[in-house]
Amino acid sequence: MDVTEDELLTAIRRVLSDAPPEVVVGVGDDAAVVRPGAGELVLTTDALVEGSHFVRGLTTPRDLGHRAIAVNVSDIAAMAASPRYALCALTLSDAVDAAWTMELFGGMREACDAFACTLVGGNLARGRDVTVAVTVCGEVASGRAITRAGARAGEVVVVTGELGSSSAGRRLRDRGPSWDELERAAIRLADRGQARVGEGALLARHGATAMLDISDGLCLDLARLCAVSAVGVRLRQTDLPVGPRATVDEALGGGEDHELLAAMPAADVGPAAAAMHETFGVPLTAIGDVTPAGLVLLDAAGQERPLPAAGWDHFA
Amino acid sequence: MDVTEDELLTAIRRVLSDAPPEVVVGVGDDAAVVRPGAGELVLTTDALVEGSHFVRGLTTPRDLGHRAIAVNVSDIAAMAASPRYALCALTLSDAVDAAWTMELFGGMREACDAFACTLVGGNLARGRDVTVAVTVCGEVASGRAITRAGARAGEVVVVTGELGSSSAGRRLRDRGPSWDELERAAIRLADRGQARVGEGALLARHGATAMLDISDGLCLDLARLCAVSAVGVRLRQTDLPVGPRATVDEALGGGEDHELLAAMPAADVGPAAAAMHETFGVPLTAIGDVTPAGLVLLDAAGQERPLPAAGWDHFA
Repeated sequence: MDVTEDELLTAIRRVLSDAPPEVVVGVGDDAAVVRPGAGELVLTTDALVEGSHFVRGLTTPRDLGHRAIAVNVSDIAAMAASPRYALCALTLSDAVDAAWTMELFGGMREACDAFACTLVGGNLARGRDVTVAVTVCGEVASGRAITRAGARAGEVVVVTGELGSSSAGRRLRDRGPSWDELERAAIRLADRGQARVGEGALLARHGATAMLDISDGLCLDLARLCAVSAVGVRLRQTDLPVGPRATVDEALGGGEDHELLAAMPAADVGPAAAAMHETFGVPLTAIGDVTPAGLVLLDAAGQERPLPAAGWDHFA
Repeated sequence: MDVTEDELLTAIRRVLSDAPPEVVVGVGDDAAVVRPGAGELVLTTDALVEGSHFVRGLTTPRDLGHRAIAVNVSDIAAMAASPRYALCALTLSDAVDAAWTMELFGGMREACDAFACTLVGGNLARGRDVTVAVTVCGEVASGRAITRAGARAGEVVVVTGELGSSSAGRRLRDRGPSWDELERAAIRLADRGQARVGEGALLARHGATAMLDISDGLCLDLARLCAVSAVGVRLRQTDLPVGPRATVDEALGGGEDHELLAAMPAADVGPAAAAMHETFGVPLTAIGDVTPAGLVLLDAAGQERPLPAAGWDHFA
């Protein structure tokens, strides 16, 4: 590193947003102090690890910082909560300098500003690889968080946005620099992540009984929702909102889409979809039915087969 | 890894403490949901990185897990707050297996139980090196957090416990396996960390105006406290409570002691020290005076010299 730790901390502080009044003590002390709102706290942590989640040189530090915040905010959104505060435990390698680190924090600030949360604390360490470990603390009205556990047989499975685009983006990025507009959008999604905060709250208001964000692939995350809710699912392949440059396999198994997957009563789907389109311009698509048991895919040929086990296992 | 991610997550959940009633949603959903207390929230994050903070093989995973929690709780203690919830973003390498990981979580649980906090969430990733990134969320009565900013000229600088023992422990551990009891205690401190939670609250009740925990070495952390408080200090070397197997240099510059360093009015020191001894059996020692400006060490020969810049800079 081309500066001392204290010099870098001083520079980082200049990149951060002004803290709102509920931040009593922000970056620079042993810990941050904040005034909580009236509801419950929602806490999540997620790390982006060099070589596993990103390749330095294939992503900009600004995009990486944005993504590190977004993937955490997406978990907050999946509880139908609102992000409030973020912290970052950052491991820097000898391969990055102060300018790179400033860009990373610039990207974190961009995302924090976009998602209306404040970076209130962090820590710097050194290691062989860069790791960006972020924690986000959010808030939700008491008793209003939507877990993975509430889906009931007879309900409908819905998903926001489009599936597979992040996987497609990673594939297309590796293919080389001659992309059309939709391909660029997929690559941007892969590089910067996204979070459906308003959409999560809207789904909760419109009757969602169980919800999660798709981070490890539709099939794997859907299987998790079913396991926790003790239900089954019958997924209809032809109804999947496959991203415009993605394949069906990428829609079924691709990780890091960060779309919201929810169960809700059939009667609520229409009003929820209309409100989602009107408020956010985001499609909400019914892709299957909650059943008493079993994980079934109705494929494009109309044949029922077991839901593929495809998905992102960090240890596979 | 010798198991799948979901198998490992299931095993980890079995190692964790039963969650108290204020944990509405614990480990296993997109995010944890907890009910906050009446006061303010205190948030901190800190990572232990293989090769930088520990060498696998020289520490047990159980000690490493304990230390990852303790170093964070120490930051909460330094605000005079109480730890409540912990999260862990864990990066595992190919060199560790499920049994190692279970031991790590066992150590985190031990520490959480000791410090009365609950591990409510986490994340698993894979990388070249092990990184244990922990976030702790604590609570403090509104307006009662002690920052680094309140020290005033004329006050006294005090420190809990003994200094340099963690550094001494690292040195002694490398020397080989023929240690006496005090040496073993120093090595244990280096391996497992510590946090002075009750002691921090006691110092706040007894008039502490500024406080931090010594993580990067007495001189460096004292300089930081003085910078934020816009004061100076005159440190008396002969009054330092040097650990029984530590050197004066280790007491002045050794990192990771996790003792509390505070400023308080001179009249409060006696009662605070008496209460500290009676309640916790921990010494509280006056080691210097807060001055209007300048960082001065009164050395063993009675000579004044500039406070050494010694300390732990992660990028030096």
